[in-house]
This record gives sequence, C-alpha cells and structure tokens, in this order.
Amino acid sequence: MSERKLTTRAEDFSEWYNQVVVRAELADYAPVRGCMIVRPYGWALWENITAALDQRFKATGHVNAAFPLLIPRSFIEKEKSHVAGFSPELAVVTHGGGEELEEPLVIRPTSETIIGHSYAKWIQSYRDLPLLINQWNSVVRWELRTRLFLRTLEFFWQEGHTAHATADEAEAETRQMVDVYSDFAVHEAAIPVIPGRKSEAEKFAGAEITYSLEAMMGDGKALQFCTSHNLGQNFAKAFEIRYLDKNGVLQHCWTTSWGLSTRVVGALIMVHGDDQGLIFPPRLAPYQIVIVPIFKTDDEKITVFETARRLQRELTDAGLRVKMDEREGMSPGFKFNDWEMRGVPLRLELGPKDVAKGSAVLARRDRPGKEGKVFLPQPGMAAAVAGLLEDIQKALHRRALEFRRARTVEPADYGEFKKAVEVGFAFCWWCGGSDCEEKIKEETKATMRCIPLDQSLGANPTGSGGSGECVYCRQPAKEKAIFARAY
Amino acid sequence: MSERKLTTRAEDFSEWYNQVVVRAELADYAPVRGCMIVRPYGWALWENITAALDQRFKATGHVNAAFPLLIPRSFIEKEKSHVAGFSPELAVVTHGGGEELEEPLVIRPTSETIIGHSYAKWIQSYRDLPLLINQWNSVVRWELRTRLFLRTLEFFWQEGHTAHATADEAEAETRQMVDVYSDFAVHEAAIPVIPGRKSEAEKFAGAEITYSLEAMMGDGKALQFCTSHNLGQNFAKAFEIRYLDKNGVLQHCWTTSWGLSTRVVGALIMVHGDDQGLIFPPRLAPYQIVIVPIFKTDDEKITVFETARRLQRELTDAGLRVKMDEREGMSPGFKFNDWEMRGVPLRLELGPKDVAKGSAVLARRDRPGKEGKVFLPQPGMAAAVAGLLEDIQKALHRRALEFRRARTVEPADYGEFKKAVEVGFAFCWWCGGSDCEEKIKEETKATMRCIPLDQSLGANPTGSGGSGECVYCRQPAKEKAIFARAY
Repeated sequence: MSERKLTTRAEDFSEWYNQVVVRAELADYAPVRGCMIVRPYGWALWENITAALDQRFKATGHVNAAFPLLIPRSFIEKEKSHVAGFSPELAVVTHGGGEELEEPLVIRPTSETIIGHSYAKWIQSYRDLPLLINQWNSVVRWELRTRLFLRTLEFFWQEGHTAHATADEAEAETRQMVDVYSDFAVHEAAIPVIPGRKSEAEKFAGAEITYSLEAMMGDGKALQFCTSHNLGQNFAKAFEIRYLDKNGVLQHCWTTSWGLSTRVVGALIMVHGDDQGLIFPPRLAPYQIVIVPIFKTDDEKITVFETARRLQRELTDAGLRVKMDEREGMSPGFKFNDWEMRGVPLRLELGPKDVAKGSAVLARRDRPGKEGKVFLPQPGMAAAVAGLLEDIQKALHRRALEFRRARTVEPADYGEFKKAVEVGFAFCWWCGGSDCEEKIKEETKATMRCIPLDQSLGANPTGSGGSGECVYCRQPAKEKAIFARAY
Repeated sequence: MSERKLTTRAEDFSEWYNQVVVRAELADYAPVRGCMIVRPYGWALWENITAALDQRFKATGHVNAAFPLLIPRSFIEKEKSHVAGFSPELAVVTHGGGEELEEPLVIRPTSETIIGHSYAKWIQSYRDLPLLINQWNSVVRWELRTRLFLRTLEFFWQEGHTAHATADEAEAETRQMVDVYSDFAVHEAAIPVIPGRKSEAEKFAGAEITYSLEAMMGDGKALQFCTSHNLGQNFAKAFEIRYLDKNGVLQHCWTTSWGLSTRVVGALIMVHGDDQGLIFPPRLAPYQIVIVPIFKTDDEKITVFETARRLQRELTDAGLRVKMDEREGMSPGFKFNDWEMRGVPLRLELGPKDVAKGSAVLARRDRPGKEGKVFLPQPGMAAAVAGLLEDIQKALHRRALEFRRARTVEPADYGEFKKAVEVGFAFCWWCGGSDCEEKIKEETKATMRCIPLDQSLGANPTGSGGSGECVYCRQPAKEKAIFARAY
C-alpha cells in the first residue's frame, strides 16, 4: 500500500515492474541473495494457476508424486549435456547432521536424473507404460542476475516426467503438453502465445527437441512461458530405463519432461499491467471483484454495509472470489487506487444513493475512467458480474494479441530486422545455422525465440510452407523464426 | 503388486508396516539415505489430506504463502533454545554456482526464523495484526534412524505461523489450531486423538507451550499426530517483530506456529490397517471404490464392461473417486486381494449374473468375508455407495476408539504402569517433574506423551480435576498424563 505514484512503463519498464511487484505485495526479497518470498496475494495467484493446470494435467491422464529435493552429485553427471548445462548453477550440500558428507548432494535444479533413477526401478514391462507423472515443487539454480518471479535462485514450478514405449508416443506427449499449456495460456492467463521449436543453442540440456511458448511482454520483449522437451532416449540410456516389449525384447524407453514456473506470474504482470499497476485476468485473479462501501455518517455506514454484505454473500455463493474492503480511516478514492494497483478486475462501489436506488456501480479495471463504469440493478447482480468478468477476460486477451501483432514485423532485410527487435518480434526466414543465430545475438541482443509450429502465426492460413532467404546470411531458408530480445 | 503374503502385524508390526508401504506403492526409498519418494498413490492420499486441512485453515482466516528453502546459518542462532534444538539436524549448503559461499546456508528444518525476519519487516502497527499465514512445503532434518513417512530426512508438511497483539490472542490461536486438527483427525482421518500439553522436555525448541494430538497405533504405541506451539515473545524478541499499539507504544508481538506432516500417512496405515494390508478412511482414500468386472467369455466381457462403465460414470458424476480395474491377465481373486492390500474402502464386483439381475455385489474393506458383502440393485447405486462409505468412515473411527480405550489403563501403581505401557497407554497422575519423566523413560522406554486437555479422556465427564499421587515418586500430583512408547 502506497500513495506514491508508480513509475510509468514508458519511463522505465523494469522499474515499473519492480515497484508493482513489491507494492502490490505479490512478493518480497528474501535475506538470501536472489531468493524470493511469495506473499499471500502472490501465492493466491499461483494457487489459481496451479489449480487450472493441475486439472488439465489430470484430465490428460497424469498423476502427481513427490521426488526428493536432494540428489547425489554423481547423478547429474550421468547425462553428458545435462551436466554441462547445470553444473555451473548447482547449490551443493556438503554437511549434514554436523558431519561432512561422503558424497556431496545437490539441491535439485530439475529432476530428470532422480526420476530417471526411479523409473528404471519401477518400469519392467510394456504394461508399465506410459508412465505419466507430474510434481509441484521448487528447484534451485544459482543464477547471478535475479529478479522477482522472472529469475530467482529458488523458484516454484511443476515438472512433468513421462516414459513411453516408442519415439512416436514420446513426441505425441511432448506436443500434447504444448497444447495443454497453450490452452491454459489463452483461456486462463489471457496471454497469446506462439508455440514453437527451440534452436540447438537454446534447447534444454539433455533434450532432443525443446518446444516452448513465447509471449510478448508490454515492452515488446519476449518471455518463455514454459517448455516441453522430447528427451529421446538420452536419459533412458543414462539411467537404464528399460522395458520388456510384447516380444520379450528389452528396450530403452523414450522420455519427456515439461515445466511451467512462477515466471508466468511475471508474464501476467508484464502483459496485462498498465501505469496504474496490475491487471489480472478474472479466471486467475485472487480477487475477481472488490466491494468498496462508501459512506459519511454512521447511519449511512450501517445501511451501506448491510447491502454490501448481502451482495458479498450473493456473489460468493455464485462461486466468485470477492473481497470486501472494510478498512477504516481510508477514503474511497484511496481504496479505488489501491485495488486498481493490485489488479482486481472489477470494483463494485456502493453508496447510500445506490442502496436507495437498489443499484450499484461497477468499474472495470481494464477500461479506466467513465468508459468502464456501469450502473447495475442489485437483483441479478451475480450473473451480471460473471458476464462482465468474462468480457474482461476476453478483452485482455484481445488487447494483448493486438499489441503483439502490431509489434511483430516480417523484416525484408537485416536493416528492418534490427529496427523490429528494438520494439518487438522479428518474424523472418532463418537458415537454421548457429553462426547466424550467434551473430544476430551479438549485434542486436535478439535471440532465436522459436520456430513457430504455425508458420503463419495464425494470421494467414495460406502463409505456411515455402522458402526464402535467411535474414542474416541470405542463404536458402526453409523455416521462419521469431527473433526478439528476451527476459 | 505382489502375491507373497504380508507378514502379519502380530508377527512383526514394524515389518508389516514396511511391506505394506512399499507393496501398496505409497512410497519408495530414495537414493539419498533417509529420503523418501512419495509415489502417485501415496501422493493422492496426501493431496486429499492437504485439501481437507487447507479448507479448514482458510475457513479460520489463514492465507498461504511461500518462504524460501534456504536460510542464512546465522538466523538459526538468533533464538537460544531453537539453535540448541535444531543445530544437530541441519543440512548445510556451502557452495553455490561453483564457489564457496561467504556465509553457509541451511535448508530449512522449520521456518520460524525466516518468517520472523519477514514479519519484522511487514508488521508496523496493530492494524497489521493478526497476521495468519500458512505454507505447504518440505523441510529437511538430518535424522539418523529413518522410516518411510514416520521419520525421513526430507518430509512434507504445512507450517502455520501467526503473529498477534496480545498473549491471550496467541494462546487462543494455538488452541484453535488444536481444535482444527482434532476435527480433521476425527472426521477425515477417522483417528481418535488426545489433545494435550507437552512436557518441558518434549516441547518445541523455542516454544513456551506445545500442544499435540496423540494417537494410538495398531501395536499400542503412540504417534504424535501434529503440534501447535505458543511461542510467546521468544521469536518476536529474537527477530524484533514489533508493532505500534493504539496508544502509539512499540510492543513485541506474540507468535505461534503449528504443523502437520506426512507422518499422518504413517498414522493412517498403523491405525486402520489389518493383516490384509491398508484400510483407508473413505474421506481421504485416493479411490473410494474400485469396480472389478468379472467375466469368462468375450461376450460376457462386452456386456459386463458396458454396465461397469455406466456405473463408473454414475458414481464419478456423484462426486465419488472411482477406480475401474481393467487390467488384463489377472484373475478377479487376484484383483480383490490387490485392492484390499491397497486399502480401497469399497469394492464393486460385477459379473454376467449381476448384469442380468440388474444388481451388483458391494464388499466392505473393513469387514472381511461374507459379513461385509451386500447385493444392491443398480438403480440408486451412487446414493447407496455414498451411504456405505459414510458407514465405513464412522465404523473405522469407532473401532480405533474402542481399541484405544481397551488398551488405555489407569495404573494404580508403578507395577501396573509398567505392564500398561507394554501394550498401550498409561493414563496416570504425574507430579510434573522432569526427574520422574526421565526415570520412567529409562526404565520403561515410555515417554510423557501429553497432559490431556480433557482430564477424563472424554470417557467420564465428572472425572476431571482433583489430585493424586505421582505414579513414580508418589508425591502430590495435580494432573494426569499419558505415558506410552512412541514412534
């Protein structure tokens, strides 16, 4: 809570982000450098995210489990590219119970290795496949530059780990999870995403193929929303995950992993927020509607609260997440600003006149000022509120999609490319070479975000396929890629 | 899954426990000594436990948050008795990102210290109180002797941490949580519990008062179901958690903490299980009912599955957790035994004759053999199943309560006491002295479990109050205590 004005996004997007995270009490800095405390308001948001995803994971046949936090150091070393990727980021436990350990343990940076070890024990025959397990937990990666939600030493996430009998099934699972995440992104987070394939340089340490969803933030930069990895037989071979097939032949499994983290909270902030603060999509918002009672005299207070409480009850009974602001000693105007800053999608204002007229004022967070205000009769309020929330949900997605489209350019040459990545995404032919990718990064700070699965970005169904010239080297190219500066 | 017979509880209770945990696939041993993998079936049970508790915590005004895993070593040292209690059990991170850390970090053994640090920042005035936060996470304590669920290096739990303006409010919160846990124990876990006060020797390191719920396991030993601590101003003073009261005077807060862990899974196993394996109370069971289709010919299979699927749908639609056993190549008898071992409270058997008659056989897990079987018509099956599940829930609690009563003795002298703690609880006058407590432990292995809040154990409303002679030293005693050997 603070009356100081937020820095505007145009002034300093990054500073705006930091301010809004702390002032809205989503998170706080921990005493250990780079760690994060997720405060109740932020955690309520994360709980809604987890519920929406967990339900989708279970509907697609996955079950949850819990694997240990501590992994023997030697496990990480069993898969060659995995160790190369994660070694520099490990937190190492050397002492336990007052004594030095014989073998140091690492705090999991991700769980492919310890899960691979278990799967090797649990999987015997084709009857045990597919094995489809997810876990919700936190992992630790020793990052140097950290920011709340976007990159922290410890972060919260889910990691799915599956084992299959064939390469095709593993690829189908990997792609299925891309679809599951996309559905979540669009329908829950109201964030338009571009599903695509990562380059060799950007893929997960140990994966054959990494898919990601890329989203555009309010400053035009990209954020990787989540990833889904086809691990081929890399971990199955490193950990001897094998099964007897129907013919009695011993085969290595094919495995996948996929994850989404608290980074998504950062995405929600940066996609939807405005200069007044946060705007949460109704389906994920900790509070979907806040009721602010307005009164001057004690008599008015009694009347207004009576009606306000009744409305609160009606809305709550209809399954809505309602906050009643009963704080004393604060003006309605202060409360309006405070809840706007905190991103509550809808505000119900109720004064003595509204009570007398049997109505209330509803103010939409996504449309500031009079444009977003409607007067509604109290009877049928719950249905009207539910309808408004649905409108807001759709409007946020539409706005974000329009913003991304407006800032996505198909550059004709490298000159246009350089301008495009100053403010948004460049969508262009790329030869697939790491050299071009590396040079582009050096010269423009833009990285290869993904090769979109839909080569038309959904804009032009006839635009897929074909070929062109690489935006950098002008050699023949068969696929278009998204390049952007990224979080 | 295994056709070997379980060791019986009478033969070796401890071995029975280990076998049933592993064979029912509740948990597995991790590669790191003393750590545990909670497998999907065990985690589904834990998810039901967390949901039942979380709903109760929220209904009593608590919110969830997430505090970091890593705590500076120096934090643990700020509260004198806390450091004495936890120092020997710490896991210490000395290296991060390839470098030695300036200050070692510990993996949280519990979060009073890091939360105290945050509360000191967040709490300014009486308006910020009470602060009522819970978190679901895992903690690490370097235990030497470990057993799955009962004592593991890493375990899963919730830890509530609250701050209050007055001593009375803190005590009321501490006691409220005892009630919340008791309600959960009785109505969800079907486990009768004895709420009571811990001795000085047994209380939490840093608490003024520790309350616990004590339950009797199937071998007569006690298990501490959960704890609730009144921390007084100990942590508030160590971490400077202060608030300005209404008169503008700076005061230290009063804090509490309370927790319940995956040990409770161990309690569910040991309270309800029998020689056939697990018996889960319906309200927490991962599957409440398993459907086993019975057929010989392909034609029968088609008919039986058609009806089985319809019943599955009806039961699922009624909000029940249903498992259909479609496994091939296993006899119905094998499946019956398998699901009995896994503790599913109700089994629905459906064969061609049942289909023809429009009925089905329901078999209760808590009553073996014919006694527990009923034939029911298919119409109205969901309501009948719900009713049966409620009966089973109550029957399990009743049985456990009768068992505990039968094995709880009020010994007239120390001779009787020694016999009582061989098989169950001794409920007796105790002078309150640590010497007697210590001697009793040395001589009988029984520890002071708690001084029951209800000094009649609910059996005799007029039995409270009064005084007697300490069972050990025969000095005057004002309170009765429960002594027992314990997990």
